[in-house]
Amino acid sequence: MSLKIAIQGIKGSNHHQVAKDFFGEDIELLECLSFDAIIDHLLDGTADKGIMAIENSIAGSIIPNYNLVYHNKIHIIGEHYLSIHHNLMALPGIALQDIKEVHSHPMALLQCKEFFKDYPQIKLVESVDTAETAKRIKEGQLANIAAIAPKMAADLYDLNIIAPEIQTIKNNATRFIILKKQNKVLPKEEINKASLRFITDHKRGSLATVLNVMSDCNLNLTKIQSLPVIETPWKYAFFVDVTFDEYEYFSKAKALLGIMSEDFTVLGEYKNALLL
Amino acid sequence: MSLKIAIQGIKGSNHHQVAKDFFGEDIELLECLSFDAIIDHLLDGTADKGIMAIENSIAGSIIPNYNLVYHNKIHIIGEHYLSIHHNLMALPGIALQDIKEVHSHPMALLQCKEFFKDYPQIKLVESVDTAETAKRIKEGQLANIAAIAPKMAADLYDLNIIAPEIQTIKNNATRFIILKKQNKVLPKEEINKASLRFITDHKRGSLATVLNVMSDCNLNLTKIQSLPVIETPWKYAFFVDVTFDEYEYFSKAKALLGIMSEDFTVLGEYKNALLL
Repeated sequence: MSLKIAIQGIKGSNHHQVAKDFFGEDIELLECLSFDAIIDHLLDGTADKGIMAIENSIAGSIIPNYNLVYHNKIHIIGEHYLSIHHNLMALPGIALQDIKEVHSHPMALLQCKEFFKDYPQIKLVESVDTAETAKRIKEGQLANIAAIAPKMAADLYDLNIIAPEIQTIKNNATRFIILKKQNKVLPKEEINKASLRFITDHKRGSLATVLNVMSDCNLNLTKIQSLPVIETPWKYAFFVDVTFDEYEYFSKAKALLGIMSEDFTVLGEYKNALLL
Repeated sequence: MSLKIAIQGIKGSNHHQVAKDFFGEDIELLECLSFDAIIDHLLDGTADKGIMAIENSIAGSIIPNYNLVYHNKIHIIGEHYLSIHHNLMALPGIALQDIKEVHSHPMALLQCKEFFKDYPQIKLVESVDTAETAKRIKEGQLANIAAIAPKMAADLYDLNIIAPEIQTIKNNATRFIILKKQNKVLPKEEINKASLRFITDHKRGSLATVLNVMSDCNLNLTKIQSLPVIETPWKYAFFVDVTFDEYEYFSKAKALLGIMSEDFTVLGEYKNALLL
């Protein structure tokens, strides 16, 4: 039986690409129109795994997604980096000068806005998903609309790429996390990264103290993000990612941080992926 | 002559409310449909000041806005917190059961989605600005569409609030920064907060070392956010906000951090605002 993978967006989206890269071809996709829907599929057991974008090298973290994982007690069991390529695509036979509107996800539009400065006649319209517009263009045979989407969407929905790689910053990677309801316990020697959440008081130096402990335990910080705790003013939650060479370093840090910080939670322990 | 203030969105938006709160009634608003446009107005001198949302207690930081300020060498000269109230509004005489679509900014829709779970017949549609839909409803006399917008928009565009305060989390504050092209040098005794950006190497403990110095200089960290430096793998930029009691503490920290970190930049020194 194929693995059931819940993704944000539809077939041909970047999340679909990650599903293929991470799990191979023998998968059944559950297309979700929101990140919440991914979590719902995991909680009710209709999906085995979920894939969720968590940060982008240009736009930064998607904080609400960290909170979704934390509040629903979902486990991060892996990560994957995808280099993002934005391609402008339209029905076969349509040229750039025929295009009146370009529809895509707000983030994709933002990352390609320099390209469109030369085409002021083209109206940019926000849509919910990159691939969804590609599908809509095919189904409606929409001649004057182009989509910004991954190459995979052009293949799936029989569109032509009329301008490849139109993103302003070429070095654009998005990090995705792989999610599961129950924790998948990996052999300790395969684990070299962890995602943590903890709370500290608004007291001078309290974060520095925690980071000193991490450093003393040979953990490398790869990401840190503060977020006010909404219900309690002057408390801060931190989402932190760390890498380490030996699991025992991390074990020791966990024991210390569990005592030193409040509400210490391991969101996931997994294998560090390569940023290609 | 009135102060010319560039805001994101149109009259009746949360940015408009902040402009009134911070600068009073005698202002001329420059309505912008993107954050970039605010920066453009400051750079070409058509606006005296700009107002930009920078973080929200639910969604976290708006990282691209930090980068806009940094890359364009704009100065942060103040901050303001606004408690966000989402109100559902429609033409007079229209009731909740008449509504077929609700249009608003994606963030407003996200923050109110629990409310709409009881009204599955209502379609949620993303728009660029909260107040803009309110204006469109008035101008087009659109009977079956409601907007989620601040109360000010209902007053300006003659709409009725058919459901007040529909946000799920009631304690929802957004922090705005006040921007100027040239730095506004405040008297030192009025300055007790600063926004900084610096880079550290991906070396174990390098951030902890910087935070130790800040703590030794009696600076309180109120926000920290890491962001990969896109052009150089394994380097991280940090956006940090600190508060302090005495400007001389900060002067000392500046001197040390300028030596210890790379590309140390003060984005602004200003007066800490109250989170009401």
